Amino acid sequence: MINVAVFGYGYWGPNMVRNFYANKDAKIVWVCDLNKNRLGLVQAGYPSIKTTSDPKDIMNDSQVDAVVISTPVSAHFPLAQEALEKGKHVLLEKPMTTTVEEAEKLVELAGKKKKTLMVDHTFLYTGAVRKMRELVDSGELGDIYYFDSVRVNLGLFQHDVNVIWDLAPHDFSIMDYLLQKDPEAVSAVGACHLGDLENIAYVTVQYPGNLLGHLHVNWLAPVKVRTTLIGGTKKMIVYDDNQPSEKVKIYDKGVSYSQSKEDVYHMLVQYRSGDMLCPKLEPTEALRLVSKEFTDSISQNRKPLTDGVAGLRVVRLLESSNQSIKQKGKVIKL
Amino acid sequence: MINVAVFGYGYWGPNMVRNFYANKDAKIVWVCDLNKNRLGLVQAGYPSIKTTSDPKDIMNDSQVDAVVISTPVSAHFPLAQEALEKGKHVLLEKPMTTTVEEAEKLVELAGKKKKTLMVDHTFLYTGAVRKMRELVDSGELGDIYYFDSVRVNLGLFQHDVNVIWDLAPHDFSIMDYLLQKDPEAVSAVGACHLGDLENIAYVTVQYPGNLLGHLHVNWLAPVKVRTTLIGGTKKMIVYDDNQPSEKVKIYDKGVSYSQSKEDVYHMLVQYRSGDMLCPKLEPTEALRLVSKEFTDSISQNRKPLTDGVAGLRVVRLLESSNQSIKQKGKVIKL
Amino acid sequence: MINVAVFGYGYWGPNMVRNFYANKDAKIVWVCDLNKNRLGLVQAGYPSIKTTSDPKDIMNDSQVDAVVISTPVSAHFPLAQEALEKGKHVLLEKPMTTTVEEAEKLVELAGKKKKTLMVDHTFLYTGAVRKMRELVDSGELGDIYYFDSVRVNLGLFQHDVNVIWDLAPHDFSIMDYLLQKDPEAVSAVGACHLGDLENIAYVTVQYPGNLLGHLHVNWLAPVKVRTTLIGGTKKMIVYDDNQPSEKVKIYDKGVSYSQSKEDVYHMLVQYRSGDMLCPKLEPTEALRLVSKEFTDSISQNRKPLTDGVAGLRVVRLLESSNQSIKQKGKVIKL
Amino acid sequence: MINVAVFGYGYWGPNMVRNFYANKDAKIVWVCDLNKNRLGLVQAGYPSIKTTSDPKDIMNDSQVDAVVISTPVSAHFPLAQEALEKGKHVLLEKPMTTTVEEAEKLVELAGKKKKTLMVDHTFLYTGAVRKMRELVDSGELGDIYYFDSVRVNLGLFQHDVNVIWDLAPHDFSIMDYLLQKDPEAVSAVGACHLGDLENIAYVTVQYPGNLLGHLHVNWLAPVKVRTTLIGGTKKMIVYDDNQPSEKVKIYDKGVSYSQSKEDVYHMLVQYRSGDMLCPKLEPTEALRLVSKEFTDSISQNRKPLTDGVAGLRVVRLLESSNQSIKQKGKVIKL
Repeated sequence: MINVAVFGYGYWGPNMVRNFYANKDAKIVWVCDLNKNRLGLVQAGYPSIKTTSDPKDIMNDSQVDAVVISTPVSAHFPLAQEALEKGKHVLLEKPMTTTVEEAEKLVELAGKKKKTLMVDHTFLYTGAVRKMRELVDSGELGDIYYFDSVRVNLGLFQHDVNVIWDLAPHDFSIMDYLLQKDPEAVSAVGACHLGDLENIAYVTVQYPGNLLGHLHVNWLAPVKVRTTLIGGTKKMIVYDDNQPSEKVKIYDKGVSYSQSKEDVYHMLVQYRSGDMLCPKLEPTEALRLVSKEFTDSISQNRKPLTDGVAGLRVVRLLESSNQSIKQKGKVIKL
Repeated sequence: MINVAVFGYGYWGPNMVRNFYANKDAKIVWVCDLNKNRLGLVQAGYPSIKTTSDPKDIMNDSQVDAVVISTPVSAHFPLAQEALEKGKHVLLEKPMTTTVEEAEKLVELAGKKKKTLMVDHTFLYTGAVRKMRELVDSGELGDIYYFDSVRVNLGLFQHDVNVIWDLAPHDFSIMDYLLQKDPEAVSAVGACHLGDLENIAYVTVQYPGNLLGHLHVNWLAPVKVRTTLIGGTKKMIVYDDNQPSEKVKIYDKGVSYSQSKEDVYHMLVQYRSGDMLCPKLEPTEALRLVSKEFTDSISQNRKPLTDGVAGLRVVRLLESSNQSIKQKGKVIKL
Repeated sequence: MINVAVFGYGYWGPNMVRNFYANKDAKIVWVCDLNKNRLGLVQAGYPSIKTTSDPKDIMNDSQVDAVVISTPVSAHFPLAQEALEKGKHVLLEKPMTTTVEEAEKLVELAGKKKKTLMVDHTFLYTGAVRKMRELVDSGELGDIYYFDSVRVNLGLFQHDVNVIWDLAPHDFSIMDYLLQKDPEAVSAVGACHLGDLENIAYVTVQYPGNLLGHLHVNWLAPVKVRTTLIGGTKKMIVYDDNQPSEKVKIYDKGVSYSQSKEDVYHMLVQYRSGDMLCPKLEPTEALRLVSKEFTDSISQNRKPLTDGVAGLRVVRLLESSNQSIKQKGKVIKL
Repeated sequence: MINVAVFGYGYWGPNMVRNFYANKDAKIVWVCDLNKNRLGLVQAGYPSIKTTSDPKDIMNDSQVDAVVISTPVSAHFPLAQEALEKGKHVLLEKPMTTTVEEAEKLVELAGKKKKTLMVDHTFLYTGAVRKMRELVDSGELGDIYYFDSVRVNLGLFQHDVNVIWDLAPHDFSIMDYLLQKDPEAVSAVGACHLGDLENIAYVTVQYPGNLLGHLHVNWLAPVKVRTTLIGGTKKMIVYDDNQPSEKVKIYDKGVSYSQSKEDVYHMLVQYRSGDMLCPKLEPTEALRLVSKEFTDSISQNRKPLTDGVAGLRVVRLLESSNQSIKQKGKVIKL
């Protein structure tokens, strides 16, 4: 049994508590939040869990094996650092930290302390993304040409971070997970139409070998769009997270190309169009699997699927995008 | 009656001939094409039209008042230049020329010769784009925040131009027509996955005052998408050219924002969501209106809606995008 | 303050309790359910509410002004009858009763006892249906030609009632509310593909003056469809309850027709196609308004919007449909 | 080489001429139409084809092996009868005739004369319908539970036939082709909202063994719908002819059912939900295959796929539907 404490019972914390409460390998002993009203909700729903507004109660409790940090991102680093130093395993909400430097320190510290450091890149635990990874790993897609994601809608302006820090962690983590490559350069352009935080941004990520990643994130769109296109040499995917079912469509479409001299004046390109398959997806709630992966990786003394290094890679893309946006789209080498 | 000659009877030429044939203010006297089989089709369908493979027959025919040039783009400049010098009006297929320099020369020459120089930016004559321009001009949208266009599908790789020269003229001309502003900078990233012409590209256009334009053009996508999002301070538009009807949807949605100090900790942003209207669109074939605009502007001795300067603006965006793409996304100041 | 008791805490009961709990004119004093586990849930969530498995506790409690009956339909009649006789107001889940005879008895009894008898036709309290009723009442639709509804999906076979009793009460109540006419005849055809309850049925309702109503209800369909078409002389509606927003679309389309002798050989019919409008809908939860209508109608001593007679009209359509289905589609006069 | 004459060059005739012109086993020798202007179009497009307004020119031309009849339906029977009597093969536009009696006479006459009698049920030659038939024949769907078709839109009121004679031949022919069973009873309800021809109708067809067919045909709908649902014991189909591609979707969904006594109170029904497949469809133009089937069946001296008996089955459903509609939905036994 792993004794767990949860920091932060705001937007995402209750989901964390609900899923760790249902995890038979975990026992939630503490929930910490600065807001007493939020703690009241914990007491009503989970009388067995102790509550506190003082992180020290948790840090100093040697019964606590692991902490889940779902506070605002600015508190991620100090809480995680202290918890690791106290010998506790750490699961961090995304984005992992506010800077690459902080993320690197946590990775290093976790290594030194031999503790699990995991980031909650929730989407990687959905049936849709897992199915897409299967298609990549099995070679069914072939080599990937591009990853193009649109995540836009009206609403939920954040007060502390811009649209990239708010929405792009989802797309960056999915892209990182599917492409499994190190990017070479990032550029981003955005605009602040209300206040001084970007509410729209376009991010381009260049990978070796002509592989392109691209994101459109936008808080000011007339309709909600959650669509990713992935082009491969053999097959292509449309992933539409707005669909209640039929989220992933696999198109057996492609192009073959002949470069021989003669063909230049004849038929250069041949199109292939076959079936479209919409596979059944595993319906388990993603956060249930996040919780399980955290406790399993602790028990089995192994790296979790979304470890600190994965979190660091995403923070690096976020930080670089924001550097580029401040320089009006300058290409940032990685 | 305006006597017209048409150069090029390939992909678009037959549509030009059909529409000028139906234009009661025009008479087609010549069609020129290097391919004799194509000319045979003209003779079968339009016995009254003379055909030739030699442009000189047209250039030297003083009966010809105006020429329509729907050849491959590389022939646009020499044919248009010669026709203008011979005192003929010119309608050019898009894109107008292969370089800004050529476009500038034609604009200058047409001015000197006092002849009509028009570019066939067909989309501007569709009911959908005309309706959107109305919404802009009436102030119904308010100020525009961004113009975001996706034009992707599988197929029709070109052998002579990349995906930007092939597809982006549509979006650039629509964006130029609706925004009515001069861009400040352009950047583009693309990739050549088959051969040495880019088959996917992302183009960002920065305008004064935080206005952003963005295009995704792609020959290698699993599905056909033709969607433009336009965000305004008062209303927003989704323009989906794939829809058989209901192409333009106007959302009465928006955000109002308070910057007062106190509000920072209370309610910064208020969302508004009202009706969505899908207006009836004028169904007249766009090319019919292109033909009419050409002959009307000649008869009335006025500038056409899509004059040489409009064509030049689009070529400038195309050229800059390609400069940027060759420098891996470097921002090009205009 | 109206003291309320709720019978049945199964599928719909918890929603009733939640909404009456939030209704400031009502106080829930009892919840009754035969299943002790269900009552445990009430105690945990609402410590102030008394629970019982014996309906007599409620019937004999003179503090109870009104009862809400959300039990299986077979218990509706005896519970409602006893409550009315004890001088209590009654809100019944749909369908009101299992037979027309029972419904008529309750209507009569409520009249004699001068108590409110209301049926929870929830859909009539949604923003979508209220908007459509507005369009009918304002004359915007013109005269109605037909009401066509499809309510199909895979799943949720019931063990006690067929697909008509399960799904058609929704469509019948909406149709009755919008058309505001008495039907003349009903016919229905169905089939039992699994077991001996119909899992698919088509119901046709004939109204005076060429007005047609039609339902397709189906438990065995590959996709979920919730679409109603309403044709009027002036405008037409597509109501798609599957849409997260944009549920009601109003088409300014129509046909005008000339019957003059000459026209027979010329132009008989003229089509009109104008804008489509998707109005903003009131987002209040329907069941909140059901609860409010029940307490308001009691306080104001007036008939509720969905009174016993409305419930009776729906039961009459259900009963007739089932008579017809047993006679393989015979037309049943009403 | 089969010498062919075509009667009727109105709406469908030009498509027939174009496809038979391209059929290398056929030679069109005559086109007959009462309207001289229409014949002018034939002469312009096909100088090698003779034209006439007098059917006798064709009937008496012993060079003519076969006739294609695409006139208004009232002329189908007399023309087909005379052509068969003159020893010519006959291809009839749908619907085959205006009465069952006429259809039966033609079938008998063709048998006596040993001539091919074929009906142009075009849809059966589309890639979509052929694919669905494959799925039925291979057993992939299992036994069929129901066939449900909606074919509605605004427009094209006919002056001579009601909406059933206009639209239902498509659905009846597809249903007949896929189900391969003889119906037991037909009922239909409709309404005449403009003039005295039904513009909306619902038709129910009862087959042995609980198999149901149902059609909704409507000239007065706000949107165009062309959707067929087919439920089978193993798989289910959504066929949406409005889709430019992805017309046929095969759902691996189903229900299994246990009738054992104990299960009644436990788990009666189990749902299964698997992949959805959207197969690539053969893109050949259907009418090209109609033309080929006609000449092949003549050359090979065999019955065509859509022979006179298939045409007769469709006319029987049309006639019965109209009998029922005149009796306000009375069930007509077949």
